[in-house]
Amino acid sequence: MNVINLQQKFSLFSDQWSPKIIGELNGQEVKLAKVQGEFVWHDHANEDEMFFIVKGTLKIEFRDKTVVLNPGEMIIVPRGVEHRPIAEEEVLLMLFEPAAIKHTGDVKHELTVEKYDKI
Amino acid sequence: MNVINLQQKFSLFSDQWSPKIIGELNGQEVKLAKVQGEFVWHDHANEDEMFFIVKGTLKIEFRDKTVVLNPGEMIIVPRGVEHRPIAEEEVLLMLFEPAAIKHTGDVKHELTVEKYDKI
Repeated sequence: MNVINLQQKFSLFSDQWSPKIIGELNGQEVKLAKVQGEFVWHDHANEDEMFFIVKGTLKIEFRDKTVVLNPGEMIIVPRGVEHRPIAEEEVLLMLFEPAAIKHTGDVKHELTVEKYDKI
Repeated sequence: MNVINLQQKFSLFSDQWSPKIIGELNGQEVKLAKVQGEFVWHDHANEDEMFFIVKGTLKIEFRDKTVVLNPGEMIIVPRGVEHRPIAEEEVLLMLFEPAAIKHTGDVKHELTVEKYDKI
């Protein structure tokens, strides 16, 4: 049971689109990610997913709208809703999601991470 | 499915030790709270609880140690672990915990909130 400092954890990795687990509770995982560029369209059939922005500006495209998220802002993407994150410059973000979640749902892509590292 | 801005949400309330629900996902709730002073010793028998500090310095006493949390830092308190948050000056924090959680576990206290407001 230790204090987790986000800035220190972000300093431990540089690879983008590869979330790292920093905490686990109640079957959920807290992850940090660095992202830049366009991700792949996907959804998670059974998992809601929360994005919290620590640094930078993240756009998330949905089929019917696009939202823009700045530091201190968050969004909960309900299960089954297709989304595609886009970051012109690097974004640092925190994710809350069930431990069972697959990175890109049923979509397979070169960016898909099969197993998350813990840091 | 809207963007949630923490600063805007914090502006909506001023009562301390009374967490407000700002999001729900996967049976979990995301809450914001303003706290100052000493809370009551308690634990949650079946729920892990995450504290993320947005503003200020929060101490959390455990029976065997005390931790100090600053903005951008978090801690996960496992189920069954007694804890007592203390804030000399007002602290703004985000909580991530199961929807079923009771504010002060099985402890009843004048600060105990029975039902959380959504904002």
